[in-house]
Amino acid sequence: MQIALQQAHAAKARGEVPVGAVVVDKAGKIIAQAGNETRELNDPTAHAEMLAIRRACKVLTTERLVGCKLYVTLEPCNMCAAAISFARIDKLYYAAQDAKGGAVDNGTRFYHQTTCHHAPEVVGGLNEAEASTLLTEFFAQKRK
Amino acid sequence: MQIALQQAHAAKARGEVPVGAVVVDKAGKIIAQAGNETRELNDPTAHAEMLAIRRACKVLTTERLVGCKLYVTLEPCNMCAAAISFARIDKLYYAAQDAKGGAVDNGTRFYHQTTCHHAPEVVGGLNEAEASTLLTEFFAQKRK
Repeated sequence: MQIALQQAHAAKARGEVPVGAVVVDKAGKIIAQAGNETRELNDPTAHAEMLAIRRACKVLTTERLVGCKLYVTLEPCNMCAAAISFARIDKLYYAAQDAKGGAVDNGTRFYHQTTCHHAPEVVGGLNEAEASTLLTEFFAQKRK
Repeated sequence: MQIALQQAHAAKARGEVPVGAVVVDKAGKIIAQAGNETRELNDPTAHAEMLAIRRACKVLTTERLVGCKLYVTLEPCNMCAAAISFARIDKLYYAAQDAKGGAVDNGTRFYHQTTCHHAPEVVGGLNEAEASTLLTEFFAQKRK
């Protein structure tokens, strides 16, 4: 999660929403990491999780990351929660909760729905304070 | 929708799930089109809608497709429904319903949730029979 947080800080420095994600394989090796790039890429789907998953799949030349874990600094949204499911991620660790846009423990709680066909094990709250402060400060600065 | 169906047929010919999508601008001009490419790209996020949105954003150098319409041959899943929302698509036309994985009129019905911050106008059922037959035949063939 420390590396995901570094990615979140790097995203902030680029003017992106400060969220970072890391994909780790069965052996604990980092396969891919990313921060948000929606602005840089002009791509509304370029959330950190999406980029990390897409990059990991490219590295492993597979569309299923069976046995892999994903660390992300913010509770995944509906889009990312579903992508994590499609990628067959084994375990999801997230830091800050997202009451406004989250889809794991908030909102649609996607992994509990009948239209979800693979649900990762979920651990929320890792390094929550740091991830949450980073986001709160970023949006407070934006509103100035 | 005819062009989206052509993309779905082309996807089938490549061994992909036969779904196609088209993004059209305010003036009715086609900005981007795509069929599923999850296998070809080793990318579980490469659904037709995602690719069409990402390509349209690239063409228009924006992350918001305000005023644009998206035509897709299958009811969008959770991932795509949220991406359509993030891209600020104005109007969504889809063909076949997807009771197992849809997130517009089935499943989470995402556009009716409080964690959805932009909902497109939705028209379902255009060319439903053709799109539905294409998918049914594809999966029947796979099970043989």
